[in-house]
Amino acid sequence: MKELEQRILRDGQDLGNGILKVDGFVNHQVDAGLMDQCGKELAHRLAHLGATKVLTAEISGIAPALTTALHLGLPVVYARKNKPITMPDQVYLTLAPSHTKGRMVELIVSPEYLAHGEKVLIIDDFLASGATILGLARLAKAAGAEVVGIGALIEKRFEGGREALLPLGLPVESLACIETMEGGRIVFKNQ
Amino acid sequence: MKELEQRILRDGQDLGNGILKVDGFVNHQVDAGLMDQCGKELAHRLAHLGATKVLTAEISGIAPALTTALHLGLPVVYARKNKPITMPDQVYLTLAPSHTKGRMVELIVSPEYLAHGEKVLIIDDFLASGATILGLARLAKAAGAEVVGIGALIEKRFEGGREALLPLGLPVESLACIETMEGGRIVFKNQ
Repeated sequence: MKELEQRILRDGQDLGNGILKVDGFVNHQVDAGLMDQCGKELAHRLAHLGATKVLTAEISGIAPALTTALHLGLPVVYARKNKPITMPDQVYLTLAPSHTKGRMVELIVSPEYLAHGEKVLIIDDFLASGATILGLARLAKAAGAEVVGIGALIEKRFEGGREALLPLGLPVESLACIETMEGGRIVFKNQ
Repeated sequence: MKELEQRILRDGQDLGNGILKVDGFVNHQVDAGLMDQCGKELAHRLAHLGATKVLTAEISGIAPALTTALHLGLPVVYARKNKPITMPDQVYLTLAPSHTKGRMVELIVSPEYLAHGEKVLIIDDFLASGATILGLARLAKAAGAEVVGIGALIEKRFEGGREALLPLGLPVESLACIETMEGGRIVFKNQ
């Protein structure tokens, strides 16, 4: 998506070690209008899969998942990383490595909101190693739900997430696919 | 707002000790369409204040702040509770007690995204004791920004947040104002 690619080129910062800082429009400050456009585009590309629910992980997945869900007319569930007191004792829980935290984090979903037979669309801000998305797919499977597709705002092609997701055999859409990010120069696929 | 009040009556759960569980449409699973309606209504009520930015706290403030920002055409900044590696070393940080966590949490905003002279609209999911919103107001003040108004989805009138915010001398809007919540019966103001 051109608008997102252009914004990454303008405001994204390559912090080294494959870390792309997009805190000015995705992760800490959110450009609500751009996020809505991204949600609309992901909804457009993934609507044919017939999802019944959008699933993401807190924190930074919430904004893109919410706008996508809005354009699909679906509810969105965000996996929690800490179990709140409002959640029942029995939950679906998996562990996933956090790239930016350098440790494993928990992903927790209440059985109240992820049911057998649901068709789940997984949406996240980044597709990097694919570890978070694989974790979400495990939660969906544990609940007896079927994952039907995957969408991300920004794909870091060089971190191998697309390959890691291959065994799922699902459509994977990203709105800005970064082929390489070397020497501070960001190169998009098909650019 | 009738739609939100009716949803609270239908799907909200009084867990005792003043805790209202709204995980089915606000906090864990989000009803994207309802959240958009809520954002539209908050934007409608607060547009005249001329805000330049929406400020909230992760995690559960993100959804209502994003939809409000969308309808106001503004960016939204969510205060982080843990400093990510993408954030500069010097930040605005304050402490606020977390009702649901039973301890103090940090609220952190990068000076990159909250600047002197900005007009800030604070949006959160709940107005309970007002402690989180007061923390956000301190962050705005530290940045030299001016808070112009406050909006929340659900106000727990009996927890005194509105009185705690009085010294700020600002308009405070809530979409569903719960007067009492006793014996499992939820009573809204003006009902």
